[in-house]
Amino acid sequence: MPPTESDLLRHIYHRSADLRAHFPSVILGPGDDCAAVQPNPGPLLLTVDQLVEGRHFTPDTPIDLIARKAIARSLSDIAAMAGTPAWALAAGVIPDGYPHADQLFDALHRWALHWRTPLVGGDIASAPRHSPLLLSITVGGTPGPVGIKARSGAKPGDEVWVTGRFGGSLESGRHLTFEPRLAEAAWLSAALGDNLHALIDVSDGLGRDAARIAEASGVRIELVAESIPRHDDTNAAPQDPMRSLADGEDYELCFTIAPGSFTALTPPAALAPFTRIGSVLPGTGCIARDSRGHQHDISTLGWDHTP
Amino acid sequence: MPPTESDLLRHIYHRSADLRAHFPSVILGPGDDCAAVQPNPGPLLLTVDQLVEGRHFTPDTPIDLIARKAIARSLSDIAAMAGTPAWALAAGVIPDGYPHADQLFDALHRWALHWRTPLVGGDIASAPRHSPLLLSITVGGTPGPVGIKARSGAKPGDEVWVTGRFGGSLESGRHLTFEPRLAEAAWLSAALGDNLHALIDVSDGLGRDAARIAEASGVRIELVAESIPRHDDTNAAPQDPMRSLADGEDYELCFTIAPGSFTALTPPAALAPFTRIGSVLPGTGCIARDSRGHQHDISTLGWDHTP
Repeated sequence: MPPTESDLLRHIYHRSADLRAHFPSVILGPGDDCAAVQPNPGPLLLTVDQLVEGRHFTPDTPIDLIARKAIARSLSDIAAMAGTPAWALAAGVIPDGYPHADQLFDALHRWALHWRTPLVGGDIASAPRHSPLLLSITVGGTPGPVGIKARSGAKPGDEVWVTGRFGGSLESGRHLTFEPRLAEAAWLSAALGDNLHALIDVSDGLGRDAARIAEASGVRIELVAESIPRHDDTNAAPQDPMRSLADGEDYELCFTIAPGSFTALTPPAALAPFTRIGSVLPGTGCIARDSRGHQHDISTLGWDHTP
Repeated sequence: MPPTESDLLRHIYHRSADLRAHFPSVILGPGDDCAAVQPNPGPLLLTVDQLVEGRHFTPDTPIDLIARKAIARSLSDIAAMAGTPAWALAAGVIPDGYPHADQLFDALHRWALHWRTPLVGGDIASAPRHSPLLLSITVGGTPGPVGIKARSGAKPGDEVWVTGRFGGSLESGRHLTFEPRLAEAAWLSAALGDNLHALIDVSDGLGRDAARIAEASGVRIELVAESIPRHDDTNAAPQDPMRSLADGEDYELCFTIAPGSFTALTPPAALAPFTRIGSVLPGTGCIARDSRGHQHDISTLGWDHTP
């Protein structure tokens, strides 16, 4: 017989009993009607992301990687605001008869700690057998010293840059093992300060997410398709770099900076590479120019689900 | 064709555009990778609760009441810490083809505002057709002036009290229309101060939830079954008040106070009634005494789901 909800909750409370010793900001961890934390002074960043079996992972995905992706996706949103995570809440809907709920919540706890984000509370609900397993992870965080970096800050004249490489995330399994770009965002925020203008994490495809910066900022973005750093293992033909603009789930950062502000900087070798891929102009829209100089509207590439 | 995810998000962003004007603590509402709020000084209460179609509501439940219950359940957790809600995040998993996603998110927004809790962000995911509709609501709040009221504060000698009436919540539909006891909790916290020792909201049955106070506080709780205020419309036979200890989803408060500390108080007439139902003793366990003086272990009455 699978453990009851009470057994599972007791297991979680026991495992979380020493959270306070390691995270002094945790006032009350799992086990009461609410958790309580002491937030840092200043603004609080908030995000929630959901992971649905059959949509974001296949039923045969190892439990550890399901948990890892659930936590990493929400942390990627904190990175996309150049913030530092402070705490997390984990909620799960567990289909009746699912035997691994305790391992799943242990793995969520472990990955949250891995990224220094104590799991202070959550909720467990059951659903009919054969319902999809579902996790939703809420994370709170603190903006960097130069404040909140939204997607609306891009200015005409800016350069458009990205971290890491793009494409083939689903086929390669990278969508399960990506590193949220917290360290890169922290370094960018510290090194560029007010010259870091706009930031987004690329989850739905570089084209669609770059277009979100353009729309929110009231500017036009033009990318050079050939300059987009691509993973070598993508199946995209070398003559079609457009593919890397459409693949989703890269969880890299796309950001705009004041012109020339990166020139004098030397990023630490431990960070993902930074690459310039385009420019911000007055106007509207988001396009990529291919090697023959043809323009492609890239704002509707990538992922859009009809709910 | 149902609206796409982008259409729905645009609708939500547009509707939320004036949140800041009404809630100065909202720095950045829906539309970016994170929301940002300015928390009050001092501790932050955090809770997340999930609502699953087929478990917490039937498929024919009006959309407005689904949204109401989702918001009210999380607010009940804030009331259970004698706190005041400050902001909410709403995440939903929408089965493919579901045509009412925009109405559902509008209703969530409306009910959150009704209880002065701005909906600052969220997430929308899709799931295969015939998956259960699912909502998870995260709420942040501020403890009352005398600090965090956990379930672990009960002391031998305390009196055990409840708000409102119990029983028949599911049959009567009250599980969809209950009022989270925010006003009662605020008044108790202000009127009793340090004499308010422990607090919980009754979601899984009064027996089971009173037992949680006993276990967390390391005390014994003895209730007088006949004294439990019951709804008149319950189907329970009058000779069986035990029923009101087992029915779940009452969302009333159960709390313990220093002996005699309620005597001189006059609660405002607008609040739910307050009733003494038992006592806290040294020891362990949670029992109810029936009219013939027989003891019943009530700690395993009520709801426990096997996930």
